[in-house]
Amino acid sequence: VIERLAIIGVGLIGGSFAAALRARGAVRHVVGVGRNPANLRVAIERGILDSAASATEAVRGADFVLIATPVGQMEARLREIAPLLDTRAVVTDGGSTKHDVVAAAQRALGERFAQFVPGHPIAGAEKSGAQAADATLFAGRRVVLTPVAQTRADALARVRAAWERCGAQVVTMAVQEHDELLAVVSHLPHVLAYALMGVVIDDSRSEALLANAGSGFRDFTRLASSEPQMWRDILIANRQALLVALDKFQASLGTLRAAIEAGDETLLERSLAHSRAVRDAWLARAAQTGGGEGGAP
Amino acid sequence: VIERLAIIGVGLIGGSFAAALRARGAVRHVVGVGRNPANLRVAIERGILDSAASATEAVRGADFVLIATPVGQMEARLREIAPLLDTRAVVTDGGSTKHDVVAAAQRALGERFAQFVPGHPIAGAEKSGAQAADATLFAGRRVVLTPVAQTRADALARVRAAWERCGAQVVTMAVQEHDELLAVVSHLPHVLAYALMGVVIDDSRSEALLANAGSGFRDFTRLASSEPQMWRDILIANRQALLVALDKFQASLGTLRAAIEAGDETLLERSLAHSRAVRDAWLARAAQTGGGEGGAP
Repeated sequence: VIERLAIIGVGLIGGSFAAALRARGAVRHVVGVGRNPANLRVAIERGILDSAASATEAVRGADFVLIATPVGQMEARLREIAPLLDTRAVVTDGGSTKHDVVAAAQRALGERFAQFVPGHPIAGAEKSGAQAADATLFAGRRVVLTPVAQTRADALARVRAAWERCGAQVVTMAVQEHDELLAVVSHLPHVLAYALMGVVIDDSRSEALLANAGSGFRDFTRLASSEPQMWRDILIANRQALLVALDKFQASLGTLRAAIEAGDETLLERSLAHSRAVRDAWLARAAQTGGGEGGAP
Repeated sequence: VIERLAIIGVGLIGGSFAAALRARGAVRHVVGVGRNPANLRVAIERGILDSAASATEAVRGADFVLIATPVGQMEARLREIAPLLDTRAVVTDGGSTKHDVVAAAQRALGERFAQFVPGHPIAGAEKSGAQAADATLFAGRRVVLTPVAQTRADALARVRAAWERCGAQVVTMAVQEHDELLAVVSHLPHVLAYALMGVVIDDSRSEALLANAGSGFRDFTRLASSEPQMWRDILIANRQALLVALDKFQASLGTLRAAIEAGDETLLERSLAHSRAVRDAWLARAAQTGGGEGGAP
């Protein structure tokens, strides 16, 4: 049981983590930190938080700290709390990129860095804020932890156990591997959704385009309704892997484009059928494992 | 009331059209045409069809004909039925591209071309076959009709009335306008979803990529589970407008890529926030009009 849980950034991820542990009786006191008083009030009214405080007050005496702000704000928050962190405390984060967060934690936490466990719950949604928090958000979802050489084994074990109490399937991998994989399956699709919205916005017939857009367009662009500040941070933080992913996408798109331009029915149908088969097999596997494969479907 | 409705291609669109008219008592006899006997049996068992027949038998005496095959098969079907078409009959189609279908109908129907009303119900889904047919599929959805100079006014009125009986919101526009708009909001997203699946398939770490893909990837790639033959036809049929849309997409993606590469937080956040605002406003409008704006949400 966690005695005092400090949640820095009480949004969808931070709020749902607290709500999930609370629902399982795995935490005694939850204190929240955030810049929006109205949002913290919502979290308290919903019973997710017991109290709200400044970052320094919140971590004093805390045995578990989750930082779930946009990744661009994490270093400043870690610097704030570093001097007050208990030696028994573990710190983890919910950021979608890991090498930048690890580097920030190393700079900010100094000798306390061994108590930091980099993490990423793969459970995004375009909803945000404490209002969207949901105790079941992580049930069957994948949480990736990316410990480094300095990470203490007991800190890793405690963070893993907390996520498992939330119902998540926890895996560990190298920082670099995480960032490269997520660049392809998460960050790249976000950029593509934003780019498609850009095409519609820049067109003189924007209204007519949207009036004729159906459910395919809606689902395809859902990622473009994500939190702009959060995603600005992610795309810039992981730009190195993302630019590689964008190059691969250009190559893949170029192959399709050439087949369309040439009217190559055989090649095109084979390629389309292959994509469908791989996707459908993935969905079938995910359904079998109870949605554990990264939360799909 | 339609006396004898011939559905050529009893899939999601053809089956749902028949089911919707039947549910409203707007049709007496429905005869279906298709290459897959098992699928036709399903449609008969579900009460969508009264009988199955060859195309030539089906249109004999029919006062309303819907062709809902992949667009690449339409010209051959229209040639088959042309000699048997009653002078009182109207013919329409459910194809996602219009200039190619109009050209095919003109070649195939000859003097009967004035009885042909080009149409496109914007109600796609990755499900297919008579099993997926649904009498409520078109409720609140947009159906675009693209009559040409030769199209008889009474034929247009009858096709419009039939779709309205299905609960659809019918609009008319020029063939070229339809194809340009749909290239951007429908055909382009399909290509992008297929291209992203291509990136995953071509990667030596395919399995790891899919294991870490979440609901965002799932929704983004939903279009890649569409019927390969149908979409091969659409992408090739509308390639001219699609290539223009792809060029616009490249420009939009290039702008985003440059902002990411430069780490331009201000530009990136502004662009992301603008995309979200436009998308959310569209969803809000669509919700107000009862999902009538192209069927979203």
